[in-house]
Amino acid sequence: MPEVIRAPDGLYGVAVAETSISKGTPEGSLTYRGYPATELIEKASYEECIFLILEGRLPRKAELEEFTKKLRDYAKVPESVYDIMRRLPADSNPMDVLRTAVSALGTTESALEGHEQQYSLIAKMSALAANCQRTVKGTKPIEPDANLNLASNMLYMITGKRPEKVDSWVFERILILYLEHDMNVSSFTVRVVASTLADVYAAATAGLAALKGPLHGGANEAAMEMLLEVGSADRAEDYIQDSLAHGKKIMGFGHRIYKKVDPRAQLAKGQLAKLLAAKGKGDDLYKLCDALATAMWKAKKIPPNLDFYAAPIFYTLSIPIPLFTPIFASSRVVGWTAHYNEQLAHNKLFRPDAVYVGPNNLHYVPLEER
Amino acid sequence: MPEVIRAPDGLYGVAVAETSISKGTPEGSLTYRGYPATELIEKASYEECIFLILEGRLPRKAELEEFTKKLRDYAKVPESVYDIMRRLPADSNPMDVLRTAVSALGTTESALEGHEQQYSLIAKMSALAANCQRTVKGTKPIEPDANLNLASNMLYMITGKRPEKVDSWVFERILILYLEHDMNVSSFTVRVVASTLADVYAAATAGLAALKGPLHGGANEAAMEMLLEVGSADRAEDYIQDSLAHGKKIMGFGHRIYKKVDPRAQLAKGQLAKLLAAKGKGDDLYKLCDALATAMWKAKKIPPNLDFYAAPIFYTLSIPIPLFTPIFASSRVVGWTAHYNEQLAHNKLFRPDAVYVGPNNLHYVPLEER
Repeated sequence: MPEVIRAPDGLYGVAVAETSISKGTPEGSLTYRGYPATELIEKASYEECIFLILEGRLPRKAELEEFTKKLRDYAKVPESVYDIMRRLPADSNPMDVLRTAVSALGTTESALEGHEQQYSLIAKMSALAANCQRTVKGTKPIEPDANLNLASNMLYMITGKRPEKVDSWVFERILILYLEHDMNVSSFTVRVVASTLADVYAAATAGLAALKGPLHGGANEAAMEMLLEVGSADRAEDYIQDSLAHGKKIMGFGHRIYKKVDPRAQLAKGQLAKLLAAKGKGDDLYKLCDALATAMWKAKKIPPNLDFYAAPIFYTLSIPIPLFTPIFASSRVVGWTAHYNEQLAHNKLFRPDAVYVGPNNLHYVPLEER
Repeated sequence: MPEVIRAPDGLYGVAVAETSISKGTPEGSLTYRGYPATELIEKASYEECIFLILEGRLPRKAELEEFTKKLRDYAKVPESVYDIMRRLPADSNPMDVLRTAVSALGTTESALEGHEQQYSLIAKMSALAANCQRTVKGTKPIEPDANLNLASNMLYMITGKRPEKVDSWVFERILILYLEHDMNVSSFTVRVVASTLADVYAAATAGLAALKGPLHGGANEAAMEMLLEVGSADRAEDYIQDSLAHGKKIMGFGHRIYKKVDPRAQLAKGQLAKLLAAKGKGDDLYKLCDALATAMWKAKKIPPNLDFYAAPIFYTLSIPIPLFTPIFASSRVVGWTAHYNEQLAHNKLFRPDAVYVGPNNLHYVPLEER
């Protein structure tokens, strides 16, 4: 038996696989399949980026049309799945609802072959995420509108209103930024489950379970709660000082990879400015974010992450806070799917070791003698 | 940034955590919390072993009584969860049904505090697993009988008949052997999800997703299909030779830890002999297993694992083959819970690295120019 290596806790600094999906660097750059996020965010559509992440290359025009049509054809959620969601308690955590729905969806699509299951899952995630609160509260789900692109459609299903152009554009930018990110914990979970040869719904269900955790997906909601609590830029420095003094966790800051700047946060910050200006909402919210980020950098040299700027954008778009993480999930399922396929292309079952530190040589004593 | 270590694929030989729950050794011994499985299998009850794995010590008499009562009080599955299961297609994979049910259960128990959620989940897994086929097929679930112990109760809910004493005893032995096993892939999945601070239902849902995979939990069902296909001992050697010659995977053999003998398989083998003798069923099935194991050892020096002997035992107990993995899950959820608690006691988010091997320096080209 070969010697066992003790890995650092959390597998920090341990590369568990090769990947060619995305790359973030400590210097603050991010690429999807080799293309800089800075370019994609300016020029690409959400549909194009999904194709890029799944297929490893940008689509040609006819391919993109076919792909867009496929996603549109798969967008409608079966009534039986909504019916299951409706039976969950009205106060259910939206991520629990989404996880249960995706798990149930897996039982209805066994006839779909090969990657068709993946396209269907990705297409349906928008409606599932948009309607995960509506269903449990007994309101009729809003069905996708086949005339809208993916981002506009999702915003429509969330708010019930056809969105303005700038709203769609900015929302789409954030969806693009959430698509995929290296070996984060939910993508890792997906790969571990994939390695057992479980199907893509099982793997995505596990990814959703991981994304529920407050240390992972819940951060954008927590960041928004914080912004609302602080309220205005002039209170930012006191809030940061006070939180740090009381050992209170400050959400929306720091990242495993980016120590100086999270490129996604920078890009999202620009979109927040654009959105507020276009809607004539003034710059109070922008200034509040900036003041918190400045105070945090001054105190701890920790930069804001994507969640920190996605949160005020979603809020400005009138998206209910409990949907922030489900929206994240609806986009990240694309990255999960790419990791699922990459894992299976060179699969080896994840079967790590542990260091046993418990008792030895104990012997059973009958109940009466204990 | 510290140097990144490239781990072997599947994290083979990489210890990802410390544990004091169980230990299997290459020499073929297995202990739960320091107690040899060989002693527990002879002397302990399932309830005692569950307490042992969760609490780290054998219960005193009064504690065991209280614990048993608690599990009994939590055993009934809410009608709303059965109602969700009923809405899944009649031909659903039972592990998909169980996973969806546990995910849904998580939405109904937010009022339970601390470890009460864990006791409830463990207690309900028996009825969920036993009824996961019945519900989707539109048959009324069989409710737990408060007068039976856990193992008898589960066998009763599976078969619809109060089991004979020897049936319960042998079934209980297998449940004990399935309880927990080191850093297997589903327990690892549970720990990864736990590290995000997601709740125990989310973690168990992810564990069930991993256990669905044919490389993990599905092995006992596949082993039984093989036993039925081979049919009799005199065909065993030909079957093994033929399968190996055609590169066909032979299920129920081999284990990451045990290279010479899987102690659980040895213990289960003894129980199979005992069961067949007690029921006057002759020794054909035993001889078939033995002949396959002998042929496989001769050809590949790979010993049978627990699944290989659990399968014919479950079959002899008139358990439908599609329930074999759900039964495994109903027991293993105890190990998962212990891993969940152990992870949270010294938590660090799992956030491994990957080696990027994809393209670099690509630039976006407008759709029309591709």
